Amino acid sequence: MENKLIAPRKIQGFWELMPKEEALFEDMLSRLRKVFENNCFQPLDTPVAEFSEILLAKSGGDVDKEIYRFTKGHADICLRYDLTVPLARFVAGNMNELIFPFKRYQIGKVYRGERPQKGRFREFYQCDADVIGENLSLTYDAECIKLYEPCFKELHLDAMVEISNRKLLAGFFESLGGNVVELMTIVDKVDKLPKEEIASLFKEKGLTASDIEKTMKIISTKGDIKEVKALSAMCDNDTFKKGMEELEIVDEYLKALGMTNYLYNLSIVRGHDYYTGTVFECYIKGKRSFGAIGGGGRYDNLCKNFMETKMEGVGMSIGITRLFDILRNENLLNTENYTSIEIGIITFNETLLAGLALMNKFRESGVKADIINENKSFKAKMKEANKRSLPYIIILGEDEVKASIYTLKNMQTGEQEKLKFDEIIEKLKH
Amino acid sequence: MENKLIAPRKIQGFWELMPKEEALFEDMLSRLRKVFENNCFQPLDTPVAEFSEILLAKSGGDVDKEIYRFTKGHADICLRYDLTVPLARFVAGNMNELIFPFKRYQIGKVYRGERPQKGRFREFYQCDADVIGENLSLTYDAECIKLYEPCFKELHLDAMVEISNRKLLAGFFESLGGNVVELMTIVDKVDKLPKEEIASLFKEKGLTASDIEKTMKIISTKGDIKEVKALSAMCDNDTFKKGMEELEIVDEYLKALGMTNYLYNLSIVRGHDYYTGTVFECYIKGKRSFGAIGGGGRYDNLCKNFMETKMEGVGMSIGITRLFDILRNENLLNTENYTSIEIGIITFNETLLAGLALMNKFRESGVKADIINENKSFKAKMKEANKRSLPYIIILGEDEVKASIYTLKNMQTGEQEKLKFDEIIEKLKH
Repeated sequence: MENKLIAPRKIQGFWELMPKEEALFEDMLSRLRKVFENNCFQPLDTPVAEFSEILLAKSGGDVDKEIYRFTKGHADICLRYDLTVPLARFVAGNMNELIFPFKRYQIGKVYRGERPQKGRFREFYQCDADVIGENLSLTYDAECIKLYEPCFKELHLDAMVEISNRKLLAGFFESLGGNVVELMTIVDKVDKLPKEEIASLFKEKGLTASDIEKTMKIISTKGDIKEVKALSAMCDNDTFKKGMEELEIVDEYLKALGMTNYLYNLSIVRGHDYYTGTVFECYIKGKRSFGAIGGGGRYDNLCKNFMETKMEGVGMSIGITRLFDILRNENLLNTENYTSIEIGIITFNETLLAGLALMNKFRESGVKADIINENKSFKAKMKEANKRSLPYIIILGEDEVKASIYTLKNMQTGEQEKLKFDEIIEKLKH
Repeated sequence: MENKLIAPRKIQGFWELMPKEEALFEDMLSRLRKVFENNCFQPLDTPVAEFSEILLAKSGGDVDKEIYRFTKGHADICLRYDLTVPLARFVAGNMNELIFPFKRYQIGKVYRGERPQKGRFREFYQCDADVIGENLSLTYDAECIKLYEPCFKELHLDAMVEISNRKLLAGFFESLGGNVVELMTIVDKVDKLPKEEIASLFKEKGLTASDIEKTMKIISTKGDIKEVKALSAMCDNDTFKKGMEELEIVDEYLKALGMTNYLYNLSIVRGHDYYTGTVFECYIKGKRSFGAIGGGGRYDNLCKNFMETKMEGVGMSIGITRLFDILRNENLLNTENYTSIEIGIITFNETLLAGLALMNKFRESGVKADIINENKSFKAKMKEANKRSLPYIIILGEDEVKASIYTLKNMQTGEQEKLKFDEIIEKLKH
């Protein structure tokens, strides 16, 4: 029979984990879902593909090269590259059915056709929580920042959030008469370039030595709200003052929310130019070198491409694929503790039916029990049990079945105990 | 400012739910995940897109018209149309890292570019559990059938599984000297066409009146294993006898597993010609008219397009999007019971910080509390609380904050109670 074999290749850069790691990843996702629900965010699940005119509305042709775009019949379609534009489409399309402020979270895959490299994926998960509404209180800015704390806690990590407000620098650059967008783009590079280079980039854009000195002072500011307030006198611009005021208010709210792991870092601008107020980035506490694991901020007009009504928003995001990838590379994942089978049952021909019944009884009691594949020799079954590093096995002979007493063998210690069903359940629950 | 608005259209037939329904759907998915894990299946999450040569390997050009296919750079890519071919690619590509039998489940979106219609989607969820290995015991066939029971139970439904074995009819048709594939295709239509038409289709394929009578007798058989065994004498073909034997063994295993809601229906063949033994379909008990909610069976060689080693498999699938769609259309979803906010807190300027602290304390105790958007008048806040059908609200005045005693108002009954924080937690946990 002719059967030309095809190499089982996956597309490079597309996210796929081996089962043990996937189990941990799934566990992380379900913990995050729980936190979002607990914080009154509602789930949303938009399609992976949208009409190109929707997805490309915002950015003109900017993301065109990276995007997966194709036609099907007459439809011009793209795979989504973020979860924000689909949210805007959803909100604009369901204005009359939604209750605002609308708090939604979404965990889903997004697609960017860039060249794959370490830490960069073409298909990866994003995890976003946003609040959308008209005339949104700054309490929501504080809430989105605070949200990192329970999220990271559920992942057994500590979050550290660095906060700024774009109005501050925007107002300051305005007061210097500079091109705000260009100057912001330079600030966005602060973490990547040495100070001298940043300064010379400012110089190229026409800032005077004294202006550069002031700018460097602002963007070097890191600390608590007092250090931010110490800059108040530096600038008289209204936007600057508004940013300062918003930061102070958000700080009050953060304190009321019991948030402790945060600081102000006025060099944070977040590349995207749709942020208009509060901006923030989240790091693993004590591991700033891993880079930002998430970020977010306040934006003015989510749905501007789709409708006249102005909907403000503020949102936070966790780069969950990136986070998992980092934890894996740093050997911070506990894959060894995960087991898909808690008790392996080894049966003989005459005890197979009893073994199936026992397995079912265990599962109904919430214990992950499994029969070792029956179509194998005893020796092969024992070999499989070892290979799987099962925590426990039961070798089920006829005597065990008759007496309803089972020899539970701890595969790590070799220890054996004769126990009744209920005693095994009791033991495993501890 | 020029801003040409774009209509916020979603691609037709792509799955998207409103938040309340999505919350119920997410809940269903997480319940199913729990059941699969409890039954020792490991999670897998393959990419949504694969190389076309992988996805189209099995079917030649058969699914070509339905499939979403495109190129990106030099890569010829398709969106997956099921979860089975990606599983085959994954198993073949990771043979040396996996431990067999490999039990995996996957819940993910699949894509079929057909014309959308009632109950048919272009993007929808599939939910599969499969066991892959060499020389797989029939216990796994029974396990996959049994799995519907805890899955449906978790969804507060009763499963009814109808079972057959393709060898039975294949062997029988063989013994008649007929074209097995063509005759099976006719059997697959039994639920859709009247008996006379089925009989005349058999006649067209050259079956004699006596053969047709026998065939109709077999495919009309519905009942317990005794009724299947009563047919034993009808045919002497080895494949037929093997099918009969396998059904009897699987029946023993099902009984050992405590399965009760199943019957044999020998007209079940499952369209896909890759099933080679046990086949089954699952219905909601008492609601057969809703159609099959899932199905599955035993197949011989999962990875034949990708490697020489023969890997057998048996799997079950739940059409979870279809199921949800049916429950929704039949008004069997309890969306009214879901609330994203359990307690709405209405604050005044002077109690906002105390309100944020209280909200945080509730959330840390697992209660979904939320401040009603602060940037609103008191009247507008009360209106929002009503619109959201919140179960409870607290109107937080200065007196409440000072005394740490809160007036909890039941929004359904209008009842008000003055309670301490711990008393509220206690009350809500019941």
